[in-house]
Amino acid sequence: MRWSRERSRELFARSSVARLATVDGEGQPHLVPVVFAAYGDTIAIPVDHKPKTTYRLRRLSNIEGNPRVSLLVDEYDGDWDHLWWIRADGEALVQHSGPAWERARDRLVERYPRYRDEPPSEAIILVDVHRWSGWSAGEDPF
Amino acid sequence: MRWSRERSRELFARSSVARLATVDGEGQPHLVPVVFAAYGDTIAIPVDHKPKTTYRLRRLSNIEGNPRVSLLVDEYDGDWDHLWWIRADGEALVQHSGPAWERARDRLVERYPRYRDEPPSEAIILVDVHRWSGWSAGEDPF
Repeated sequence: MRWSRERSRELFARSSVARLATVDGEGQPHLVPVVFAAYGDTIAIPVDHKPKTTYRLRRLSNIEGNPRVSLLVDEYDGDWDHLWWIRADGEALVQHSGPAWERARDRLVERYPRYRDEPPSEAIILVDVHRWSGWSAGEDPF
Repeated sequence: MRWSRERSRELFARSSVARLATVDGEGQPHLVPVVFAAYGDTIAIPVDHKPKTTYRLRRLSNIEGNPRVSLLVDEYDGDWDHLWWIRADGEALVQHSGPAWERARDRLVERYPRYRDEPPSEAIILVDVHRWSGWSAGEDPF
């Protein structure tokens, strides 16, 4: 069954991990698992503290060239009647400071115990979601 | 730590679910969870039997316009020292019959009990992987 926009948004926000797809200038998609906070039609994704390599920053350079992104939350089950997923499509903006950045940081600290000791202090990707979609093989599993 | 190409390929093949990213003509990425079989540098992804909608076939029309795809396998853990992921980047081709299609179908039937009663009979996406990459926060967790 297809889920409503509202239900998709609500359940997406409860998950702990999503996969972020960005696209480079050659049309090559790039995928990475991300932690996030979702509120309203915004998804905030921190950029981690680890030593940066060009590799690690690919998601940022991709967004600079093309802001279109997609995020997916899903759960696999050997019983395929229990499968479900939720997708959020939108446009991303990378922020380094300011009120929107602070709000995102606070939401991330609320969600992940790991951030209580060491809150996000660098870039945060803010996605403005245009479309929420969700699907489950059977009835709404929640 | 970064994993070797060989180790990434080996561990990818053991997972039950991956996320497939394709890209449309506007540069918008599209994400969907998929079952698959991986052997050598090939990943085979069945297209399911369910009633088709334009929506459901988006991955196929995207591949027709742009064969570049990315697949991700990952596992989330509340303890971030246990995080890991594996990514496969490559080019996709949609097949409907022939020896490569049959080999892919047989591999899928081997992997998923659900396919024993009802083997894939329609399109199968065959991805030729150019790059395997894997990462874990700590040591190789397997």
